[in-house]
Amino acid sequence: MRTRVTELFGIEYPIFAFSHCRDVVAAVSRAGGMGVLGALHFSPEELELELKWLDENVGGKPYGVDTVMPAKYEGGDLGDAEELLGKLQGMIPEENRRFLEDLLAEHGVEPSTESAGKALLGWTDQTARPQVEVALRHPIALLANALGPPPADIVEQAHEHGVKVAGLASNARHARKQVDVGVDIIVAQGTEAGGHTGDVATMVLVPEIVDAVGEDTIVLAAGGIGSGRQMAAGMALGADGVWTGSIWLTVDEADTPERALPKLLEATSRDTVRSRAWTGKPARFLKSAWTEAWESEKSPGYLPMPLQFMLIADALPRIARSGDGELVTFPVGQIVGSMNQIKPAAQVVYDLIEEYVEAIERLNAITGAD
Amino acid sequence: MRTRVTELFGIEYPIFAFSHCRDVVAAVSRAGGMGVLGALHFSPEELELELKWLDENVGGKPYGVDTVMPAKYEGGDLGDAEELLGKLQGMIPEENRRFLEDLLAEHGVEPSTESAGKALLGWTDQTARPQVEVALRHPIALLANALGPPPADIVEQAHEHGVKVAGLASNARHARKQVDVGVDIIVAQGTEAGGHTGDVATMVLVPEIVDAVGEDTIVLAAGGIGSGRQMAAGMALGADGVWTGSIWLTVDEADTPERALPKLLEATSRDTVRSRAWTGKPARFLKSAWTEAWESEKSPGYLPMPLQFMLIADALPRIARSGDGELVTFPVGQIVGSMNQIKPAAQVVYDLIEEYVEAIERLNAITGAD
Repeated sequence: MRTRVTELFGIEYPIFAFSHCRDVVAAVSRAGGMGVLGALHFSPEELELELKWLDENVGGKPYGVDTVMPAKYEGGDLGDAEELLGKLQGMIPEENRRFLEDLLAEHGVEPSTESAGKALLGWTDQTARPQVEVALRHPIALLANALGPPPADIVEQAHEHGVKVAGLASNARHARKQVDVGVDIIVAQGTEAGGHTGDVATMVLVPEIVDAVGEDTIVLAAGGIGSGRQMAAGMALGADGVWTGSIWLTVDEADTPERALPKLLEATSRDTVRSRAWTGKPARFLKSAWTEAWESEKSPGYLPMPLQFMLIADALPRIARSGDGELVTFPVGQIVGSMNQIKPAAQVVYDLIEEYVEAIERLNAITGAD
Repeated sequence: MRTRVTELFGIEYPIFAFSHCRDVVAAVSRAGGMGVLGALHFSPEELELELKWLDENVGGKPYGVDTVMPAKYEGGDLGDAEELLGKLQGMIPEENRRFLEDLLAEHGVEPSTESAGKALLGWTDQTARPQVEVALRHPIALLANALGPPPADIVEQAHEHGVKVAGLASNARHARKQVDVGVDIIVAQGTEAGGHTGDVATMVLVPEIVDAVGEDTIVLAAGGIGSGRQMAAGMALGADGVWTGSIWLTVDEADTPERALPKLLEATSRDTVRSRAWTGKPARFLKSAWTEAWESEKSPGYLPMPLQFMLIADALPRIARSGDGELVTFPVGQIVGSMNQIKPAAQVVYDLIEEYVEAIERLNAITGAD
């Protein structure tokens, strides 16, 4: 396959695979796509180790790193990371803490033993910048930002290192803003996607963004893409490639939590919900007692980013390993309905391509038969 | 173009156009697609006149009729149509009536002068059956049902008249149920569609339904389809054709209310909302003070189908012709963001096909360049 994006990176297939798991990233890059490591959950020191491992295991193929630098958030200009963390912790109302602890107790989740030190992670400029610094010391091909336009100086730094920059957008106006700060690739992500996502569906969003950013900007289709038919649809909409995430949660190599995996395999496409219960911004998740509780009458409502995630960050690993399991949820897109089988990541890549080719042949039969 | 559905109906393009306006239906059928008249707003006598006009104006091309027969609703087994209407009117709480009248007064909408006689329309078995009887006396090619599986005896009657039956489905389970009662064509309609719609996006839903109904059932892709790229995407997902609705609201021939038209032309893809404020079941609409008010803290909530629509039916035409205009809304899909121009219906058909062919050429360049 040959599109602007395969040419740009020298990859075989225009398939981008977002994953927090380095084994998945390496496997996809080695199979001819491009793995992109989600850096959010790593400290700069941890990220350094992950990228060192990747450098040694991608077999010389290109890979990328994905950070989360929100343009705006509560308390954004409050000193350094540690100071900021303290101040933000003080902004979380007692009512919300109590609601959370009651909910966890109700479901038998073990009490907290960890410090809340990692709770802020990469959600802020202060915490994401060190990740970018680490990433740019490695031979990465792509720096992606998952939330709005990255700061212009970060784009410049990346370009100085010969690294292309991608930004996720869920509407045409945001996509144009990203192009204005120098972003090279727009990931047009529809509402059916997992994690943070807007409300316009991929079918409508992709052509809208393709038209809005003009001919010089590469666009990848994201949201609802897990098979070759969906990949062909994304390309038919005008994209140069596809950005996928959810489907890598159920591959052999994935480190998906043990209690979440069977829920992902069993879920139908109707078992997700777009909720603010994770970070304060709408994100798509597997429905569970967790998403229901935060929408219930008892709920104190959601805190703005990054407070909501700070409140719950420490609870998530506890939910993943203890209690009755009803609270277990996971960020995933509507494509979860067709994730019913565990396969090696490379097989997922080859299946995508095989079905893609079949879809194109089918399309040609429709117009060619006359 | 040649698919199972163009062969079945002897049409040139696998484009189905749903419209309440006979001029649009005739124009699309004459241009090589298939117009489908929404019968909901017509009494049996009115429908008879519409179909007589269509018979004389489709130039011998096939056309269809779309009814709304819900499988289940409040008070479903309560005598004949008139008796039923009276009983149902009695089930509407005073609080809801008051909320509505206050809302209308606040926006300067003229008081009611009409009887509520037409309020039930085709939403029930009792009121939709006479429409079907009228429709089957005309040389229609297709009978579509917009809400769940049609009664099995209606499917049988249609088949006896040589009429194919289509049913809209927003999930795979419902699609299979429709196939079980003999429906010939499943319209797989994603959440981005206008009017009644589910929560799974077209990108995910279409392949899911194609796989669920098996090879013998024809599937049309619906929701978010307004351009040739989107049509190509729908076909890439495995559909045999596309079902469109919103895009016919802004054609020359459409009888879209004068106050709604500029709002449709100006709206972006983010200006719709899926709300129960129309019929009690989720339906996508243009956002307005109307959709906001029903979601506000003051709102008494939504009544179940068909009560919500009975409550508001009489208010809709008053909103369309009087008051400050802020309440004006209209059922429309997210594709409204690209409906920025008024064109003849035939031109819309030809533009769809021209862009469709371009999209296929582009796809072939991607795989063919190696």
